[in-house]
Amino acid sequence: MRARLLAATVALLVERGFAGTTTTLVSERAGVSRGAQLHHFPTKNDLVFAAVSHVTATRGVELAAAAARIPAGPQRTRAVLGMLADHFTSPVFTAALELWVAARTDPDLLAEVAPLEQRVGRETHRLTVELLDADESKAGVRELVQATLDLVRGLGLASTITDDARRRKRILDRWSEVLEEELS
Amino acid sequence: MRARLLAATVALLVERGFAGTTTTLVSERAGVSRGAQLHHFPTKNDLVFAAVSHVTATRGVELAAAAARIPAGPQRTRAVLGMLADHFTSPVFTAALELWVAARTDPDLLAEVAPLEQRVGRETHRLTVELLDADESKAGVRELVQATLDLVRGLGLASTITDDARRRKRILDRWSEVLEEELS
Repeated sequence: MRARLLAATVALLVERGFAGTTTTLVSERAGVSRGAQLHHFPTKNDLVFAAVSHVTATRGVELAAAAARIPAGPQRTRAVLGMLADHFTSPVFTAALELWVAARTDPDLLAEVAPLEQRVGRETHRLTVELLDADESKAGVRELVQATLDLVRGLGLASTITDDARRRKRILDRWSEVLEEELS
Repeated sequence: MRARLLAATVALLVERGFAGTTTTLVSERAGVSRGAQLHHFPTKNDLVFAAVSHVTATRGVELAAAAARIPAGPQRTRAVLGMLADHFTSPVFTAALELWVAARTDPDLLAEVAPLEQRVGRETHRLTVELLDADESKAGVRELVQATLDLVRGLGLASTITDDARRRKRILDRWSEVLEEELS
């Protein structure tokens, strides 16, 4: 029941945004009685805090699963970029975006979101270094990996209001060339 | 009076977010009577639509002014990146972010925000090409300029919940090296 409530919260964050995600809609969506929901999560904030952890864990699991599917070989760098871009344009990124933006002006929510976000950021960085087989002991490599992650975050934000899959593909093709050149 | 109302709307978007920006708060902040405000902007949406245009125009003016201050010479690429990053971490970017995210789940607002955002995107691209003296007739140059703008957008989003000015500086230093190498 807890999992159903959290999944419903994430789905509503994507469809209706943070402000439009109400406890009533969540219980309807999850098919859970108001009483049962209030037992698990007495307030919207309790629900959202738990959803923050849920979103974070989901992002980690999704990324690791996608990473495991990447083939070795000459197209690997491009495949890694494609995987990251898919992740940063997925519903779970959109849900996270809603939480970030809400947290910006809500100190209680920020106290929950910021440490989790830092952890996800570190894990995503570590995973990307590993997938790209990047040697961070070389000068400038760490910053290139960071730039890659900021680039896909920017592409993710752009994708939320414009459908620009073709533009994104060309940019990733080009960045893949530059990254391979710089990392080799 | 109109300008005061729009400036107050933008300031409230930054401080309280889209959901926390109410017409009552705007009239208080602007020092304008409720009656006068309702005369100019009958609904919150009217106010927000006008604020969207105002934010967009402000972004254009701020960018052009910053661009005019960039010196020529060997540090020019890094200065251009610094200018873009300053812009994408400024209050006017934060206000725009609030509007984008609200527009994602509000079709009426999206209809206002999306075309303006495309125009700003094109103008920022054109300005960046000009400032970097980039030759877009060469293969891959256009995509690198686009990647640069997506990078600073990603840095801007990251900066809204974590203060990472030092991290940002190192990334921009490195990106500047890559960009100079690739564009020359």
